[in-house]
Amino acid sequence: MPPESSESSFSAESYFETQLPPPSLQEDISEVRDFVRKQKDVGRKVVLVTSGGTTVPLELNVVRFLDNFSAGTRGATSAEYFLKAGYAVIFMHRQFSLQPFSRHYSHSTNPFLDFLEIDPPIHQRLSAEMLISSPPHITVTPSERVDLLRVLGTYKSVQKSGTMHTMTFVTVNDYLWLLRAVSQELSVLGRNAMYYLAAAVSDFFLPRQKMSEHKIQSGKGSLHIEMDQVPKILKPMVDEWTREGYIVSFKLETDPELIIPKACTALERYGHQVVIGNDLNHRKYEVVFVSRRSAFTKRPDDDDSGFQIHWLRINPSSASSNTRAVKEIEEDIVGELTDRHKIWIEAASVRL
Amino acid sequence: MPPESSESSFSAESYFETQLPPPSLQEDISEVRDFVRKQKDVGRKVVLVTSGGTTVPLELNVVRFLDNFSAGTRGATSAEYFLKAGYAVIFMHRQFSLQPFSRHYSHSTNPFLDFLEIDPPIHQRLSAEMLISSPPHITVTPSERVDLLRVLGTYKSVQKSGTMHTMTFVTVNDYLWLLRAVSQELSVLGRNAMYYLAAAVSDFFLPRQKMSEHKIQSGKGSLHIEMDQVPKILKPMVDEWTREGYIVSFKLETDPELIIPKACTALERYGHQVVIGNDLNHRKYEVVFVSRRSAFTKRPDDDDSGFQIHWLRINPSSASSNTRAVKEIEEDIVGELTDRHKIWIEAASVRL
Repeated sequence: MPPESSESSFSAESYFETQLPPPSLQEDISEVRDFVRKQKDVGRKVVLVTSGGTTVPLELNVVRFLDNFSAGTRGATSAEYFLKAGYAVIFMHRQFSLQPFSRHYSHSTNPFLDFLEIDPPIHQRLSAEMLISSPPHITVTPSERVDLLRVLGTYKSVQKSGTMHTMTFVTVNDYLWLLRAVSQELSVLGRNAMYYLAAAVSDFFLPRQKMSEHKIQSGKGSLHIEMDQVPKILKPMVDEWTREGYIVSFKLETDPELIIPKACTALERYGHQVVIGNDLNHRKYEVVFVSRRSAFTKRPDDDDSGFQIHWLRINPSSASSNTRAVKEIEEDIVGELTDRHKIWIEAASVRL
Repeated sequence: MPPESSESSFSAESYFETQLPPPSLQEDISEVRDFVRKQKDVGRKVVLVTSGGTTVPLELNVVRFLDNFSAGTRGATSAEYFLKAGYAVIFMHRQFSLQPFSRHYSHSTNPFLDFLEIDPPIHQRLSAEMLISSPPHITVTPSERVDLLRVLGTYKSVQKSGTMHTMTFVTVNDYLWLLRAVSQELSVLGRNAMYYLAAAVSDFFLPRQKMSEHKIQSGKGSLHIEMDQVPKILKPMVDEWTREGYIVSFKLETDPELIIPKACTALERYGHQVVIGNDLNHRKYEVVFVSRRSAFTKRPDDDDSGFQIHWLRINPSSASSNTRAVKEIEEDIVGELTDRHKIWIEAASVRL
């Protein structure tokens, strides 16, 4: 492996100079601008939630790509709790990853067609004549009705209040361009903006200059891929794009020993507010908040290293994904963050 | 690139000797066996439809993987038309790819929560008291009712008749083990079994012996991946697993010049019945059937090379994906195949 200083690493600046923006970028920006202005006018806090994995296309006409594991559960679930806490949410997610509200009815685990009924019951293809002359009613299975009403009522209320704005990305390139643009738009809110970066972003990418135009042909032995490092985007985000924003990043590891050291390194390197660390296999019931220690957030469980380590755990059995979860850890994650964000906002006015 | 005969290519035999089966394989096989027996008892033809892309994990504790582009539209749509044509369907699909019937209500393009209404209308979070004392009704938006009734009626009738069996895979390894097992089970049907291999299967994989245990760490320069070729599975399928099955494979290319030559090569190499070729950008309204010429399928458009080339096209505007499609090319693909399959079955009895 080449050393860290190899030629293959891009700075954020050189990245945006050499890679192309997604075609809909200008349109996306103008929609975000309108949304942010409306929230600013009513003094509402706004959180950007990023969610789902990014792809790295290997071909210009894309057939194959490298992907990161993520169904988008963390982001979609957290977005609901942020809305409940009174935040406006920009939900920026990978196309086809889970979304707030509809996440409760995944086509695989809880398909909605299974709890709709035809009344009177008809177990056959419906003729055109029947459909026109006396169409039967569609009803919801009684056992599902209360849960669906709860989800649907909240969904309709969020739609009516206009407090959620959804954006989609597919590739890591889409993601980087959108993140920069949205951060710059959100920076007008100063400390009232939070960034909850739960998307699983690739560390590597293939510069368009190195992609093959067509599908890579097999039948020629093994496949070799050599990728470049994605620029460390948190650095310009903190230093330039949104200096006052409250920025929360995530570290997902499979080796639990690495979580805290890597979180500390990230905080030192980028200077943002919180890293939420999680282990791939325990992420539904255990996370750790790592932050730099400071006078106004000091807690009894601080260690000596200048970092504050704060574990959040819920009962694993209540977070089971087989049945409907009784308790979701995202409720506590969002609760902890909204408390810290409040302190962060108040700290600014104290200093004035 | 190493030559085709490089050490990195696995035979199907050596593949199954060195790679591990998915944990649920035995259970999956026994369910398929029951399903096939039921269809055999009533003399129903069965088609295996494979659908969606496969992943190639780069790590044993999977965070990153290589993926193939496929939402699973072709497979999910075709499965509906096979059911309509009286076939029983084994729908073997990538987890979270589109499925028959629910595909009409993608969370992204036609989310079902958008056409459910609360009656009387309530645009607020519903209190627990309201939900228990006098829960409101849930109704379907009038403009969506007829379409939903049509889909729902067919879905219920398929469920009642037990003519669809669903299986899921994620990795290319899952796919290969399942395909072998299902082919062997289906072979008891002789010529009454069809194989419609629409899944986008990776040509490359990383043998478990070469995977890293934990998440590959970044911060060490560029990423190098070297993969081995997936064994050509059609060969043992035709020669050993299901000698009488009617096997249809797909070729997706981005360079249209390559489609027919590559289809012919595949037919010569593997000896199966049909290759359906399609161009990534025209696949919703144009496909080409390539097959070997034979006495009982000869057509006016045969060429001199011993291959029959048969184009299927529909009006591109009627296959638009923005609005609900008026006409789906899968209807014609399935129509053509069920005709050919019938001839294939009859040809066997003529020879007796």
